[in-house]
Amino acid sequence: MSRWEPNARGRLEEAAYELFLGRGYDQTTVADIAKRAGLTERTFFRHYADKREVLFGGAGALHDELLRALDEVSPELPPIEAVRIAVETISALMHGRRQLARERRRIIAAHPDLQERDLNKRSSLTGALEAGLRRRGVAESAASLAAEMGIAVFYSGFDRWLDDPAERELTEIVHERFDELKAVAAGAGSRNNDTGR
Amino acid sequence: MSRWEPNARGRLEEAAYELFLGRGYDQTTVADIAKRAGLTERTFFRHYADKREVLFGGAGALHDELLRALDEVSPELPPIEAVRIAVETISALMHGRRQLARERRRIIAAHPDLQERDLNKRSSLTGALEAGLRRRGVAESAASLAAEMGIAVFYSGFDRWLDDPAERELTEIVHERFDELKAVAAGAGSRNNDTGR
Repeated sequence: MSRWEPNARGRLEEAAYELFLGRGYDQTTVADIAKRAGLTERTFFRHYADKREVLFGGAGALHDELLRALDEVSPELPPIEAVRIAVETISALMHGRRQLARERRRIIAAHPDLQERDLNKRSSLTGALEAGLRRRGVAESAASLAAEMGIAVFYSGFDRWLDDPAERELTEIVHERFDELKAVAAGAGSRNNDTGR
Repeated sequence: MSRWEPNARGRLEEAAYELFLGRGYDQTTVADIAKRAGLTERTFFRHYADKREVLFGGAGALHDELLRALDEVSPELPPIEAVRIAVETISALMHGRRQLARERRRIIAAHPDLQERDLNKRSSLTGALEAGLRRRGVAESAASLAAEMGIAVFYSGFDRWLDDPAERELTEIVHERFDELKAVAAGAGSRNNDTGR
């Protein structure tokens, strides 16, 4: 970035969400967002390729942090434990962002093309996690299954987090769901009993 | 269908794949497909909404069969076992369709919009399986995790099936991957050992 703007990215994000929710995603332009944030369009484009990227810009950060966290886990740990630690690490990044994430979900739910993009991001994240496990020496099929399970726990935990009546943190919910995943894989969970919630 | 055409749907599918691969998906029209199959465009539209549906028409059958199979499983079985049986049942539908499925994968890989549609179908299938488990009385979070695992096994098994050097049947590969899923969830699979393949 060639010019310093105090927290320009955060201000643009906040302005964009306010407009997406107030007047609607389709009715909001990049010019509107920049104006509301008190910044120029040029500054907007230094941070985001287009308005859609405001909704998905966080995915790149999640991706990088997921792989960084994975690389720091001891190679002695089983793949599912390495995945658990990496997924719990990125879950912590969502701290304080619940309201924004709820608004994001509402916007995406109203736009099939944004839903498809969201599924794409999930698929990329799964692929990146699988590749990270392969680099640790995990066999292909174990890497693919562990990555699928980890991302499924993250996304299903994320949904739960948005609606959690107790407003628990995402890391706590994800931690619990990994335990539940293991229990369900081992044959628990029939008819509202041991894993009923 | 108002008029009987002997295996019109299968003939249209075969003609479509030949054209998609021969001249390219984008260069193929519905008229081309109907002509090659020796049928009218009107007959085409009795079977498929558009040429894209030829690639995704099978997903509806998978969806119905998955839920039918799930409903036949004893309610006493744990969710993951019910899912396993249902997924193995739909895997059997792929018998004899490996070459077609390989061609389908090649076409989809060349078209980002088809990839997104494919991800969408996967997401719908997961949602339908989850809803089927909920109807069996399985608690929400166990249903969601068991459905995610089952569909992950199906899709990753499917990919393996397309490339399997031993040309084993999909049901066999999926059966094996469910065992592996359980092992990985329980902590197996570190560094090319117990689940290495």
